[in-house]
This record gives sequence, C-alpha cells and structure tokens, in this order.
Amino acid sequence: MILAAGAERSSRIRLTSAVSVLSSDDPVRVFQQFSTLDLLSGGRAEIMAGRGSFVESFPLFGYDLGDYDALFTEKLDLLLAVRAHERVTWSGRHRPALDDQPVYPRPVQDPLPVWVAVGGNPASVVRAGGLGLPLALAIIGGIPERFAPMVALYREAAARAGHGHLPVSINTHGFVAADHGTAVDTYYPQHAEVMDRIGAERGWGPTNKRAFTAATGLRGHLTLGDPEEVAEKILFQHEVFGHDRALVQLALGTVPHRAVMTAIELLGTKVAPTVRAEVARRSPAPVDSTS
Amino acid sequence: MILAAGAERSSRIRLTSAVSVLSSDDPVRVFQQFSTLDLLSGGRAEIMAGRGSFVESFPLFGYDLGDYDALFTEKLDLLLAVRAHERVTWSGRHRPALDDQPVYPRPVQDPLPVWVAVGGNPASVVRAGGLGLPLALAIIGGIPERFAPMVALYREAAARAGHGHLPVSINTHGFVAADHGTAVDTYYPQHAEVMDRIGAERGWGPTNKRAFTAATGLRGHLTLGDPEEVAEKILFQHEVFGHDRALVQLALGTVPHRAVMTAIELLGTKVAPTVRAEVARRSPAPVDSTS
Repeated sequence: MILAAGAERSSRIRLTSAVSVLSSDDPVRVFQQFSTLDLLSGGRAEIMAGRGSFVESFPLFGYDLGDYDALFTEKLDLLLAVRAHERVTWSGRHRPALDDQPVYPRPVQDPLPVWVAVGGNPASVVRAGGLGLPLALAIIGGIPERFAPMVALYREAAARAGHGHLPVSINTHGFVAADHGTAVDTYYPQHAEVMDRIGAERGWGPTNKRAFTAATGLRGHLTLGDPEEVAEKILFQHEVFGHDRALVQLALGTVPHRAVMTAIELLGTKVAPTVRAEVARRSPAPVDSTS
Repeated sequence: MILAAGAERSSRIRLTSAVSVLSSDDPVRVFQQFSTLDLLSGGRAEIMAGRGSFVESFPLFGYDLGDYDALFTEKLDLLLAVRAHERVTWSGRHRPALDDQPVYPRPVQDPLPVWVAVGGNPASVVRAGGLGLPLALAIIGGIPERFAPMVALYREAAARAGHGHLPVSINTHGFVAADHGTAVDTYYPQHAEVMDRIGAERGWGPTNKRAFTAATGLRGHLTLGDPEEVAEKILFQHEVFGHDRALVQLALGTVPHRAVMTAIELLGTKVAPTVRAEVARRSPAPVDSTS
C-alpha cells in the first residue's frame, strides 16, 4: 500500500520493502501485490523476501516458530514457482497445494526481482547463492566486518551452483544531514524512542548515547553523518564486501518528513556520486546506491 | 495497491474495492491493508466485504467451495472483531485462532466502514441487517426491480435488531458520455470482449448487441447513457430502493483512460447534482453518488 502510494509520487526510484516476511505470508498474494506494484510503477518493484528478525507475525497468522526455517524454504520455493510460471502446480506442507492454477496479474519485469534478505544466518546465504538470487545482508547491529564471511560463503555457493556474478546489497539503518551534529540530533531521539519501546516489549536494556555514538563510527552499524562521512563508511564497507548496492533505511519512528526529504536529496546528490566515482576508480563494477 | 495509488492522486473521493472476497482472504490482512489505505488517504478507505461472484480465488488459496457460506460468516466475524479491538482473542474453524494478539496499524476512521456486498442472496442481506452493517447490492444482471424485496428484507432485519437507518448502495456497471451513441460505442466493444473472454472460460453464450441494448434501458441493469439518461435511471431506481448511494463501475476491459476521466467528470458535474436535487425534493435523506 505504502509502496503503491510511493509509485505515484516517483518515477525513477526502485520500490521495495525493508523485508516481506514470507514465512508468515502467502507467496501467491505477495507475488500478486508486487506484480500490481510493478505494473503501477512501470517495472520498478522488487521483492525483499526474508524470515524476519521480528516474529510477531507468526502468532498473528497462526504459524509455529518451530517451523521457522521450513516455512521460509517452502514459501520461497512457491514464490519462485509463481514467478516462473503463469500456471502453477505445486504442493508443500505449510500452504494448500496448487493444481494448474493461473496466477495474475503478471509483472512488467520478467523475472520480477526477488532478493533474499538475511541477517547473518549461514544456511540462508548458502541457499540464496545456490538459488542464484541476489542477497540483501541486513546489518542492524554489531561490527559490519564480521559479516564478511557471509558474503564470501554466498559467492562460493553461487559459484558452486554455476551462477555468474550476483548482486549483493548491504542494508543498514542510518541518516544523512548537512552536518554530523544535525544528523545525530535529528535521528537519535527517534532511534532511542523506538528502540526503548521495542526493548520494553522484548526485555532489552535501555539505549544509551555512548553505544549510539560507537555505532555511528566508521566500524559501527549505523550509516549516519554528513555526506562525506556516509560516503566514507559505504566505501569502507565496499572494501570489505565488494557489494553492488547500499540501502539505507532513513525513517525510524517519527523523523520529520522534511528532514527525510533532505536526507534523500543528500544521498542522491552528494553521497552517491562520491561513492560511484570511487568505486569506478577501484573496479569496473557499477554500484547502485538506493535509499 | 491500486487504491493506494489512487489515494495519492485524489483528495476527496472515497476509496473502496468493487469487492474484497473475504471468504478466501485473511481478515487480519484485509484490515491491515485498508487501515494503511485509510492512513494514507486521511480517512477515505472503506472495505466492501463479499463472498464474490467469481470463485477462482478458492482453489488458489486452498479453500473448499463447500464452505462458501461458513467461510464468509466466520471471516466477517473476525473482521469485525479486529475492527472493534486493538488486541483480539478469537477462534474459528477456517483460520488460526488469535490469543490476545495486537493488530496494527489502526485506521483514522473509527470504525473503519465495512459494507457487506451482496448479489441477491436473502440470507446475506438478513445477516448484514442484523449486524447493523451498510448494504451494497450489486446488480450485475437481470431487472433491478426484482431486487426490491432484498432491500425490504434488509431494512426489516436491521429494524428487528434495533438498528436505525443504515445506508444502502446500489452498485452497477455502466458508462456515461456526452451523448448516448458515444457511451455505447465506447463501452460496448470492451463489454463484449470481456464478457466473451470470461464466458469462454465459464461456458456462457456469446454477448449480443440486442441484449446489451435492453440492459441499457430504464429497466435494464447497465447504468449507461448520456448524463440525463443516467440520472433518470438512478432516480427510477431510487423510487424502488430508496437507496443512499449509487456506485457505477465504469472501467471494464480497456475503456480508454480519457473516456473514463470524462465519464467521472460527467457523473460529478451533471448526474450527481440532478440526482441530489431531485432526491432532496422527494425526501430530506441525502444521496451520495460515487463512481
């Protein structure tokens, strides 16, 4: 719904969710919705399929967390079947079978891009590589460098399965403003409010400014700062991962709309050109910087 | 998805589907989607819940047509529970139970309007009246007057359950153009193409112009013609049903976008004022003419 509204207000940006929790959803409906989005946007939709780091949707839609892995494997299989064929015959344990059923609408893009979004589970990255699907690695905590083996494992699995170069995206939270102080002052109160609210439900300790400051450093997981700092962090990570896309989720809580618009503009006009130029200098592979 | 795109391109029209086939969908997701639409549109979303005259979604989502009625009853019950309470405890036969589960987001409108869309099944209108829900009577064939007992039955059930005046909508297919000939020439080829394509799947006979012409007459089921004819038909039906809203579905097949935009304009600037003035003359109850 929100992406469809975005489709009407934009003409070039790609449209994707942070993650579609496929495990607790119906792959046929997810495909139908993103096909519709693809038609509305003239071929700009992408599915970001994942198991989800939040598990509230499991009891809401009647799924057992004990099936966490099996659900995703099976539903990804169905999603790819529906993407590949207009009429689908399929059966599994966690979703009613399909007997030569047609699935409409069909998307503009063929195939509709399906990324596998992972949080750091080795089995997930091996699966994505084996299936030849692009990988979105969500780094939402800790030190980004420790995820480097995941990307290596992914490239290895892809090569073993005979796939060529597959795109890798590094997805982080963050914010950009004209100067570092503004970025912190705009983002931190929202970050703290949301993290403490979620933390209260989950039993985490309270946020503190010291941990936040560490996370905004070059080796921290938040992509936050002025355009130069943000470009530097993306380029530092590019040395580690050699990734093809950097996706920064800007809006957490109620960051003011005007500040988000400014951040998007800075990403497009300052950060992306710097990153693209430097990556082009390093190698001929293009980078796609999306917010 | 399409309604969300519409929300961005409009500021006053109400946003609703022709019908959401609740029987083969998940009421929690339907509520979440229309709540999101309500938030995007500043409180203009409405759910049109029905059992559907097309049944393709049953095998697609693993439902048994033998449960046609039970599915709708149970899922409408869950939809109303989710609408009434932020945290829901519920159990049924056709959908996993909910144990004090919170459902987000919550809509702007409280309650979010839920219409019951019926095609002429007496049990359905009695249920809608008993629940105090507004009724959308879809007249997609035959002679509209023969549906009059349905509305009487609905009003009786509503009165018996202690509800006051509940809105009734008459939903039809049709088209408006500056003159009758243009309306026919624009609409008929699309109507015939779609009806014949669907008919081939379902074993109907081919469409013919004579039946179409009859359906566009005062007592036919298509709301088609110049603004004066369309207003006259709506007013004729108003004498029969005393309804509060006339909803005309304009786009069937690939009627050109420009012609649809002209039709919407004529409905708003010519048909609606004529109908409203005449209905006001007849009684103090307002009419809401929506396309």
